[in-house]
Amino acid sequence: MSAAVVIYDRGMGRWEPDARGRLEQAALALYGERGFEQTTVAEIARRAGLTERTFFRHFADKREVLFAGAGTLQEFLVSAVADAPDSVAPIDAVAAALGAAGALLQERREYARQRQAVIAANAELRERELIKLASLASALAGALRRRGISDPAASLSAEAGIAVFKIAFERWINETSQRDLPQLIRESLDELKAVTAGK
Amino acid sequence: MSAAVVIYDRGMGRWEPDARGRLEQAALALYGERGFEQTTVAEIARRAGLTERTFFRHFADKREVLFAGAGTLQEFLVSAVADAPDSVAPIDAVAAALGAAGALLQERREYARQRQAVIAANAELRERELIKLASLASALAGALRRRGISDPAASLSAEAGIAVFKIAFERWINETSQRDLPQLIRESLDELKAVTAGK
Repeated sequence: MSAAVVIYDRGMGRWEPDARGRLEQAALALYGERGFEQTTVAEIARRAGLTERTFFRHFADKREVLFAGAGTLQEFLVSAVADAPDSVAPIDAVAAALGAAGALLQERREYARQRQAVIAANAELRERELIKLASLASALAGALRRRGISDPAASLSAEAGIAVFKIAFERWINETSQRDLPQLIRESLDELKAVTAGK
Repeated sequence: MSAAVVIYDRGMGRWEPDARGRLEQAALALYGERGFEQTTVAEIARRAGLTERTFFRHFADKREVLFAGAGTLQEFLVSAVADAPDSVAPIDAVAAALGAAGALLQERREYARQRQAVIAANAELRERELIKLASLASALAGALRRRGISDPAASLSAEAGIAVFKIAFERWINETSQRDLPQLIRESLDELKAVTAGK
């Protein structure tokens, strides 16, 4: 946080160290109760006990609340792929990166479920989610190319990894199973290896 | 074409048997020349030598011109998967269906290239293209489930197939290579099999 923002916040009478988290929770609760389209930024700020100005310091708009984590996730995946030992095959480097991200997401399962229910209910948000996944696949392919993997192997490993992640994530969100996300990702990868082997 | 439409067309003074194809060509030419956003339905109709009314009998809006083939493609893929012999593995049933569709697309390579250039230049159209691909993956997974393949194998085979198709299609559109689309799909599938085998 920049000094200017802190001073500005003090000018507002108080400094809210967890404003961002409170805004996310308030937004998700309201989207679930009233629907995404019916919720206004003013209502989100009020529910969080913060001002609209504070909201707009953290998020460009109400849609951004749901997708703000995507940039962080992408950076995390790209560095995990970059850091994998040279001996690791491309698909396994991708799967290991997704598994590590899955372990972080696992700690926010209830948040992830609520978020996914909001997204599933709105066509525009579903589109945005698909774009974020396509962008993750591109970023992973780029990370593999920087490891010296040429195309189409780099793109196919990345796309296959995202397919594995997508299916594992859906099972994690929808099933009552107690399996955690990293485990479901491993199982999905094994299943992909089995189906591409023609089994 | 229904009798009512033919009569209506006759009432307009003439019947245009290839109105749809002419509208598609006119639209694509104008999108390429001026950009998608700058082109109006009136201009497309004028370029095709037809009326706006005729345009709207064939397409809901100017975006639909670019995606009208998606429903046909989806039905084609779903029946090809349904018709595959029982002995064929799910991923191979999907790949064979995509290869057969690729053979049809191959005959419209120049159209496909022009269309892809228009889509690449517009964020909204890129979103629509991703949604159509996601919808194809869902439809293929459904076709596999009706063959008795359970999830996650059905979904993974479908998603993997769409990844193979996407990469093959991009190469076909962008490369100067003389390889045709069905061949590129076969090569992409072989490459996917190699990368998932950890090679």
